[in-house]
Amino acid sequence: MNDTVCMDLDSVRKLALNALTAQGFSADQAAAIADTVTAAERDECLSHGLFRIPFYIKACSNPKTDAHAKPELVEKDSSVIRVDGKNGFCPLALNVGLPALISKAKNNGIAALAINNTYNIAALWPEVEHLAENNLVAFAFTASNAFVAPHGGNKPLFGTNPMAFSWPREGRPPLVFDQASSVSARGEIQLHAREGHALPDGWAIDKDGQPTNDPTAALAGAQLTYGGYKGSSIALMVELLAGALIGDFFSFESSAQDTHKVGAPVGGEFIIAISPEHCAKPTATVSATARAEQLFAKILEQDGTRLPSDRRFKARERTAVTGVNVNKALHDQLLEYAQV
Amino acid sequence: MNDTVCMDLDSVRKLALNALTAQGFSADQAAAIADTVTAAERDECLSHGLFRIPFYIKACSNPKTDAHAKPELVEKDSSVIRVDGKNGFCPLALNVGLPALISKAKNNGIAALAINNTYNIAALWPEVEHLAENNLVAFAFTASNAFVAPHGGNKPLFGTNPMAFSWPREGRPPLVFDQASSVSARGEIQLHAREGHALPDGWAIDKDGQPTNDPTAALAGAQLTYGGYKGSSIALMVELLAGALIGDFFSFESSAQDTHKVGAPVGGEFIIAISPEHCAKPTATVSATARAEQLFAKILEQDGTRLPSDRRFKARERTAVTGVNVNKALHDQLLEYAQV
Repeated sequence: MNDTVCMDLDSVRKLALNALTAQGFSADQAAAIADTVTAAERDECLSHGLFRIPFYIKACSNPKTDAHAKPELVEKDSSVIRVDGKNGFCPLALNVGLPALISKAKNNGIAALAINNTYNIAALWPEVEHLAENNLVAFAFTASNAFVAPHGGNKPLFGTNPMAFSWPREGRPPLVFDQASSVSARGEIQLHAREGHALPDGWAIDKDGQPTNDPTAALAGAQLTYGGYKGSSIALMVELLAGALIGDFFSFESSAQDTHKVGAPVGGEFIIAISPEHCAKPTATVSATARAEQLFAKILEQDGTRLPSDRRFKARERTAVTGVNVNKALHDQLLEYAQV
Repeated sequence: MNDTVCMDLDSVRKLALNALTAQGFSADQAAAIADTVTAAERDECLSHGLFRIPFYIKACSNPKTDAHAKPELVEKDSSVIRVDGKNGFCPLALNVGLPALISKAKNNGIAALAINNTYNIAALWPEVEHLAENNLVAFAFTASNAFVAPHGGNKPLFGTNPMAFSWPREGRPPLVFDQASSVSARGEIQLHAREGHALPDGWAIDKDGQPTNDPTAALAGAQLTYGGYKGSSIALMVELLAGALIGDFFSFESSAQDTHKVGAPVGGEFIIAISPEHCAKPTATVSATARAEQLFAKILEQDGTRLPSDRRFKARERTAVTGVNVNKALHDQLLEYAQV
């Protein structure tokens, strides 16, 4: 085991905040990022935890990135809300847009939020989980950088293009999934490369389009979509929703914007929120959420199953008591950032 | 090759209509079903073509099914519309609901249609394609019968649970996909069984939860989701949207309703429609649909790729000229139905 430092969640947040503000982020941008990073540490999603802070900081080496951006909310007389992220980071744009989305969805039954011009290196589950905590059903979509070949092709074009979904539950955390349309996350391949492990079959092709188990060849080639052409359809849908529909970059365009090779995709996010009250059958005697619990019980009756995000919520219970273990080298790097 | 009868599309529609009305369907129910079946023949989706007519007729052996049902539209002051199918078939309920959905989505930017109490044995692509022909982006979801094991489990619980998506294109048919969350359609396994062929790996498990290549053992066991846990998340999402959210049956409940073992799932369908005009970035100089064409061109640059539904649209061009070849035994069976 690597050397680690045990921290409570308040200290995690403070460390993130201090590092970001010392490195020139505005208080609002830094606070929003520190919150999403702390939530990831809390749920033991380490790749979206403190590990990301150096990426946020490096992203600012691109002169287009604005660590002081003040996102602007545009609300019209429709059920579609827009936030212009002004080339800042996505977490603050979400903070500006989500309250308006919640209000529109509760009033109209269904509403959408288009976020433009943000750098997004966070997970999607925090925003859909927040919407479900407000008793809404939600979807989120975002493109990334060109890493994934369309099915049948042999060159990277799509991003890893996650789609997230959430469902409210009474008295417990929502049901949430947040899954890339590639077989694996980019980070998992990088981890295999670093540790010198071969990739499982079906994850990637090399630069000549041949299947490969070599992580380095995979990083120079293209990742593959899950479930073959079906995952490729999902990846395409995400490009259309988070790119074309809201007038923002496709993954391949976002890659071209990354002139400083930072790896922080710039572009859009599209979110849909639905109010179960507006969708209920007039004759229904049982609520949608109570009905869903009947299905969840049927799933969990079967040995070997689990509900999406269960592991995250178990980690959350644990880390509330034990705190989290942060890699010491990372911890020291963040302290150094904070002391500049 | 089996004996076939070559028919033009008008004759296909007439044959379907005559068979259904002679078997006691109301003119409206019969016309809506004949249209969707003719569209499937036109696009060479044979499993949803005339082949389905006997299933519609057999579905009426369940006394709850109403082949004269008049679907009822419920519109409120929100962006969610409801159609009560009154235990008739889904195509007529769609005819009643789609115009209202189009109007709401164009006014509000995003809207949803909940269809309850219908028997649905049609594909989902006709409705999302229709919405895209009206310049809307659309999703559709429906549950079915309990055929598919949740990931990690070993017993059927989810339906094959398709999710469809459409995107408008200028001057050509929309981009559409309509894909089951199982690896294969139920019908493909039945076809393997009939022809005595082994199943590919990864399609199904037997009744003891063991992987099987035997189609008969697979039909007695459970189908598997595409992409492992990721397809299982999609299947779960479809149950929640088309079941719990709109107060209709889950797949396992729909199976329990099928007291006459007809195999026509009864339940709900949930559709979302989004207006690109309302989602456009104010500063955009290129329309969403024109932007999307840039992505499609990038995909098709790569050898071996194709866009979803391309095969269907090519068949459509072909059958407009050549007509379609209908299995003679099926043709004769439908003639017999029509002559009662």
